[in-house]
Amino acid sequence: MITQDKQQKSWQQIIKQFEAAVGKNGVIQRREELITYECDGLASYKQKPALVVLPRTTEEVAAVVKICDRFSLPWVARGAGTGLSGGALPVEDCVLIVTALMRKILSIDLDNQRVVVQPGVINNWVTQAVSGAGFYYAPDPSSQIVCSIGGNVAENSGGVHCLKYGVTTNHVLGLKLVLPDGSIVDVGGQIPEMPGYDITGLFVGSEGTLGIATEITLRILKTPESICVLLADFTSVEDAGAAVSDIISAGIIPGGMEIMDNLSINAVEDVVATGCYPRDAAAILLVEIDGLEVEVAANKHRIAEICTKNGARNITTANEPEMRFKLWKGRKAAFAAAGKLSPDYYVQDGVIPRTQMRFVLQEIEALSQKYGYRIANVFHAGDGNLHPLILYDNSLPGALEKVEELGGEILKLCVQVGGSLSGEHGIGADKKCYMPQMFTETDLETMQFVRQVFNPKGLANPGKIFPTPRTCGEAAHAQSQKQFESVELF
Amino acid sequence: MITQDKQQKSWQQIIKQFEAAVGKNGVIQRREELITYECDGLASYKQKPALVVLPRTTEEVAAVVKICDRFSLPWVARGAGTGLSGGALPVEDCVLIVTALMRKILSIDLDNQRVVVQPGVINNWVTQAVSGAGFYYAPDPSSQIVCSIGGNVAENSGGVHCLKYGVTTNHVLGLKLVLPDGSIVDVGGQIPEMPGYDITGLFVGSEGTLGIATEITLRILKTPESICVLLADFTSVEDAGAAVSDIISAGIIPGGMEIMDNLSINAVEDVVATGCYPRDAAAILLVEIDGLEVEVAANKHRIAEICTKNGARNITTANEPEMRFKLWKGRKAAFAAAGKLSPDYYVQDGVIPRTQMRFVLQEIEALSQKYGYRIANVFHAGDGNLHPLILYDNSLPGALEKVEELGGEILKLCVQVGGSLSGEHGIGADKKCYMPQMFTETDLETMQFVRQVFNPKGLANPGKIFPTPRTCGEAAHAQSQKQFESVELF
Repeated sequence: MITQDKQQKSWQQIIKQFEAAVGKNGVIQRREELITYECDGLASYKQKPALVVLPRTTEEVAAVVKICDRFSLPWVARGAGTGLSGGALPVEDCVLIVTALMRKILSIDLDNQRVVVQPGVINNWVTQAVSGAGFYYAPDPSSQIVCSIGGNVAENSGGVHCLKYGVTTNHVLGLKLVLPDGSIVDVGGQIPEMPGYDITGLFVGSEGTLGIATEITLRILKTPESICVLLADFTSVEDAGAAVSDIISAGIIPGGMEIMDNLSINAVEDVVATGCYPRDAAAILLVEIDGLEVEVAANKHRIAEICTKNGARNITTANEPEMRFKLWKGRKAAFAAAGKLSPDYYVQDGVIPRTQMRFVLQEIEALSQKYGYRIANVFHAGDGNLHPLILYDNSLPGALEKVEELGGEILKLCVQVGGSLSGEHGIGADKKCYMPQMFTETDLETMQFVRQVFNPKGLANPGKIFPTPRTCGEAAHAQSQKQFESVELF
Repeated sequence: MITQDKQQKSWQQIIKQFEAAVGKNGVIQRREELITYECDGLASYKQKPALVVLPRTTEEVAAVVKICDRFSLPWVARGAGTGLSGGALPVEDCVLIVTALMRKILSIDLDNQRVVVQPGVINNWVTQAVSGAGFYYAPDPSSQIVCSIGGNVAENSGGVHCLKYGVTTNHVLGLKLVLPDGSIVDVGGQIPEMPGYDITGLFVGSEGTLGIATEITLRILKTPESICVLLADFTSVEDAGAAVSDIISAGIIPGGMEIMDNLSINAVEDVVATGCYPRDAAAILLVEIDGLEVEVAANKHRIAEICTKNGARNITTANEPEMRFKLWKGRKAAFAAAGKLSPDYYVQDGVIPRTQMRFVLQEIEALSQKYGYRIANVFHAGDGNLHPLILYDNSLPGALEKVEELGGEILKLCVQVGGSLSGEHGIGADKKCYMPQMFTETDLETMQFVRQVFNPKGLANPGKIFPTPRTCGEAAHAQSQKQFESVELF
């Protein structure tokens, strides 16, 4: 009892230090308030943090991280909490550092096409801030009206337009970082391709395990002169996939190319009623074409021809913003609509070489039959980035375990055909057990050694990305994992 | 004497091990043969290696590196030796690992647009191998008919087409690496944006300090339907620069945009006599426009208008390959031609924000006057990547020192206006003393700590990239450098 009392007292002392760093209003410790933060977009895992801290500046972040370092408290950074791999899932007794109050756009330099933001700035705000002057920020996750740039950096987020314009890492030029020892470092700058090691590139996609970005320099692009959205519907998903391959083979790189299957089409029509997606189609293909007016007109014509050649039944095109948004609306709402099809869904994010699409889709269908769960397919077809949504009911005992097993089978399949576990959602807590499917022990060890440079005590987002025997039960890898774990503790 | 004898004997033993690893023909030790390897494209520094070793496979590279590790021999990797920053400059008593016998294209996958090569493969061979099928490899340094892909990876090389298509790092998907302890690791893969840390991105541009890439997976692009080269001549360099800014501001991203000043124009006309570059022009602007035929036609029209508005005297365009090559020929020969203007030249590679071009060009002219050396300007104008060529005579005592000082002033100027020390040539031995101009001690320390993960004994390309007090004499940084040095030795 006395020991508990002592612990309680010393914990109160620590909280006082956090309050001194960020102000009383910046510290959340009441149990009922902490519930908000117990999971991110991967709602199947939940864990309350010990404390939530809300800093406003780089200096406050550094002060918070230093307190964590001093008392060896594990900490997890969280942006808007929309991530789908549990990257911002708290770990037991951790301090959750939430960037929700770091929402300033710090500078805009239109001449050099740069915007500097704090990490809590919402993705869509960047485009809103510069669109009047004819610019936009390219990476556009489906969650772009709520997700934060800091979270995008952590997960190296993608989106519909990443086929042509690349993912987050291609649009981040520089970072101000708070490292896990509380020191402040600037990496990259205003210029792409700075000399020295590309620490900026290393940091983007490191899922909060190397530090926190407190200022992010983004590249913005000029808004295209003309944009057209083309919708083609097919009587088989394979035909839609073949059209995508042929478009790329013809040397056309559209702004985006998305496929939705029949289950997804009906789900979104039930929910947002676009009225544009034919409910009897096996698949629809959405293509965004951007560029000069003449270029868009020519590509529209070529893409329509390719779709027809691959068996498209109907082709609709839209140049006016209102109609374009209507065509995209269903795709953007696809994940939300999946929630209507069943009480819960579990989304995967595997990537495959485009040439394997037909085979992989057939195998996913076979797995769906085998496990007895419906799977809705929505995917960034041009990139080969699949988003199979497994529909299930989490209230049924054992369902989550079965669904995770099925998800795992899909990921293994992606890796087997030369693909990847994740295209844009990250590994987080959710997929770390599958990392050995994709990387050898030496490969993972190399990454772990890099982690130690920045995060030697392992306090920054522990238990993410890298497999641990306790949670993954990968007996075959237990030996090498032990090595990692001991390394983590030094 | 006895000690020397002993040393000699043990050295012979070591050589035997290298011969066992790569065969007798793969080891070069005769003094007169070593002369070939005493410098790279930065010919102002020379140092003979102790030994040259020419492996043919990943396994042979690993065996060679293991021998170096065992006997604590410093080693330097060398591709074609065309680098301009002394990245492949041997260090005293080092083993030079030359990839000239690793020249196999290992696989070509046109469907997924991937080519896997050994590091000694010449840049241009990649395009040659796939051009028949309608593809090409985008990064195109001026030296592309002689430089190697391995060297391109080490220096993160650019080229004319990097304005639109990005530098080497944007085209490397995966690497097989031999790390400095001789272990073999695969990083990245066939798919862009693999999960885990982006070690591929970290390695590209690390100038041989983290290991050797022995297999490189490259992304190839579809050859554009139409290409046009536009040549505009101006009565002032500033007007040419203003045209470049206006083209970018109009939202056009040409394949490449290059400016050459009067001195460069006359140098190349003297040497390759294109007959296309007007000798009385203050500057010419070369723009390559690629894409769909309609797109190229529209952009050609818009770019010509912008050039005229900015005071262009004449505009020539070429669509046919023969005439296009003729227009490019002078630009490609610019560095070689500079050799005609004076016995020696020293080229810089600074980057500036485009908006600073007018100011920086005026300052370079002022520095040229102050130091009394002529400077020819050739630059990747779209990227703000300057290549001032300082013309001098190395046989005059003290000339090199003066020219290096002048070069340093130019680099400081670039950094002051928010730019960078290097756009594509790397830091190497040449520019490491200027790194503290651009990075704080903490920034450099962070990079050094990353280096130690891969290269803890400091045997891989020692003395490159990072400033050392002995050679740089940066008293202010001596303290922290000492720290680095001692760390290097553990």
